[in-house]
Amino acid sequence: MAELWRGGICESLHAGHAVVVDAGGQVVAAWGNPEAVIYPRSSCKMIQALPLLESGAADAAGLSARQLALSCASHNGAAIHSEAVTAWLANLGLGEADLRCGPQEPNDIPARNALIRAEEAPCQIHNNCSGKHSGFLTLNRHLGGGADYTEVDHPVQAAVRAAFEEVTGEAVRGWGVDGCSAPNFATSLRGLARAMAGFAAAREGTGLRAGAQARLVQAMMAHPEMVAGETRACTELMRACAGRAAVKTGAEAVFVAILPQRGLGIALKVLDGNSRASEAAITHLLVKYGALEADHPMAKKWGNPEIRSRRGILAGELRVAPGFGS
Amino acid sequence: MAELWRGGICESLHAGHAVVVDAGGQVVAAWGNPEAVIYPRSSCKMIQALPLLESGAADAAGLSARQLALSCASHNGAAIHSEAVTAWLANLGLGEADLRCGPQEPNDIPARNALIRAEEAPCQIHNNCSGKHSGFLTLNRHLGGGADYTEVDHPVQAAVRAAFEEVTGEAVRGWGVDGCSAPNFATSLRGLARAMAGFAAAREGTGLRAGAQARLVQAMMAHPEMVAGETRACTELMRACAGRAAVKTGAEAVFVAILPQRGLGIALKVLDGNSRASEAAITHLLVKYGALEADHPMAKKWGNPEIRSRRGILAGELRVAPGFGS
Repeated sequence: MAELWRGGICESLHAGHAVVVDAGGQVVAAWGNPEAVIYPRSSCKMIQALPLLESGAADAAGLSARQLALSCASHNGAAIHSEAVTAWLANLGLGEADLRCGPQEPNDIPARNALIRAEEAPCQIHNNCSGKHSGFLTLNRHLGGGADYTEVDHPVQAAVRAAFEEVTGEAVRGWGVDGCSAPNFATSLRGLARAMAGFAAAREGTGLRAGAQARLVQAMMAHPEMVAGETRACTELMRACAGRAAVKTGAEAVFVAILPQRGLGIALKVLDGNSRASEAAITHLLVKYGALEADHPMAKKWGNPEIRSRRGILAGELRVAPGFGS
Repeated sequence: MAELWRGGICESLHAGHAVVVDAGGQVVAAWGNPEAVIYPRSSCKMIQALPLLESGAADAAGLSARQLALSCASHNGAAIHSEAVTAWLANLGLGEADLRCGPQEPNDIPARNALIRAEEAPCQIHNNCSGKHSGFLTLNRHLGGGADYTEVDHPVQAAVRAAFEEVTGEAVRGWGVDGCSAPNFATSLRGLARAMAGFAAAREGTGLRAGAQARLVQAMMAHPEMVAGETRACTELMRACAGRAAVKTGAEAVFVAILPQRGLGIALKVLDGNSRASEAAITHLLVKYGALEADHPMAKKWGNPEIRSRRGILAGELRVAPGFGS
């Protein structure tokens, strides 16, 4: 799928699976094995947010599009993210202690450094999944479940599982504990791409499911800074695609794309879990399917990044492998 | 070579090559392709230090075993490392500006946080390669070369290249720019293991080359905290091996081991460059070849690490793949 070249030698390489599915659920293109069973990890956060909207909980809580984008986020823990989560929880009458995602140091350097200078420890609000968990808590208030909303048999997770099976078109293949302690359901890569094609085809006013899907896609594309943050692939690629794609990364090098204009869903997984390869591969497919101009600076930055020494000397590059995406 | 398991599913996997060579240069065991051409990256720092000793530069500068260990280090930029580099440069009448490794934020958290609180930028002394570069500068003073000691045709690098070809038993297969801007020479994995077997067999008093090799191996094993730092695989594994192995990691998931008691050299490379797999694989081979007890806590920590959520819930584990190292 991708190769790291340095001084004329291929130093490292990444294998992976990718599949493109259309709105009818048919496979348009595949590389590797589209039937591989994977954990989507954070790439399926827009699926995990469906019960939040479909239950009426989001509207009952008056959630904005910006908050819906945050519910689908793996954010940097920058000030815009932690302030939004803090306000969201306060509106629910809840606080940091109600989250069950665990503390995480912000990836955002100014936010990280501000904590260090203040001699404050990172908290659960800084966890990259705190927006998703705020969505879980909003749904939980609506459903009246217990505080242990990350348990796999809790009503919140049962609702997520039902939505997941419906949009992937598959019974879940198993589940694991995600980095944020929530269950993460396994599916085939094709099932994940089928789900993304469903999001791509969805339009508001055509039913509860489609309406929820369309609102989430629009929220992600309208607020890309809430979905990840500055310097991050999801944010920079969605800005560059300018309404032609919603994209989302997941841990262990999963990446999905929703292409509303084409009605296509894309899912890919790098076998070894290295996101430098999944970022390059999804960028290549965004160009191939017309969501990103080949000469856009972000197509180079994420699709064919330079490797430089710490003194800035050009040392090599990451390339999409010959044959991938062709 | 290694597999990441989560919730009963193999989520990610790592392929690689490994080879064990004896003091006579014969292959004892191999998995994958021992003829694969690789960049050793930082795993060959003890080779890059050979001209420093063999030229007489190290003794002329009165370098201690602790400094020799630091010349082989990819250190954390902790206080013990940056203080030692600062003193070394001062003894040469040089300073931070003479280094050509580029600045790097320390991996050591207390050192990192101290810089942030002081609002100081990381400098070249914090670069994980600053000990190697101090060795280059020490050799350069002895050789009388120019300030541009990281150029591939500089006398320092010409001496490194000659030593590299002699101990690997191969003409270099090419070269690339390393993260610290120094040239890094390519070799077959077997050549790298052959070099490590030479270090393993070397004893002081048996010639210039062997004496230099033996001193470097002893320095690494006597000062493991200087070679990497607290919480790092090289340091913790060398402590656990207690004189039975010197080990060294390199970027893009290279790992080498020198086993003096057995006269064996080991080299391995994970194709995708992920060090979690190279750490697990080298730990497995240290146990297999008698340098580390199978029930030592470090054999578990590095050879079969747990994957936990940010709330501490056990979510999975990294395992050496079935068939690797058997």
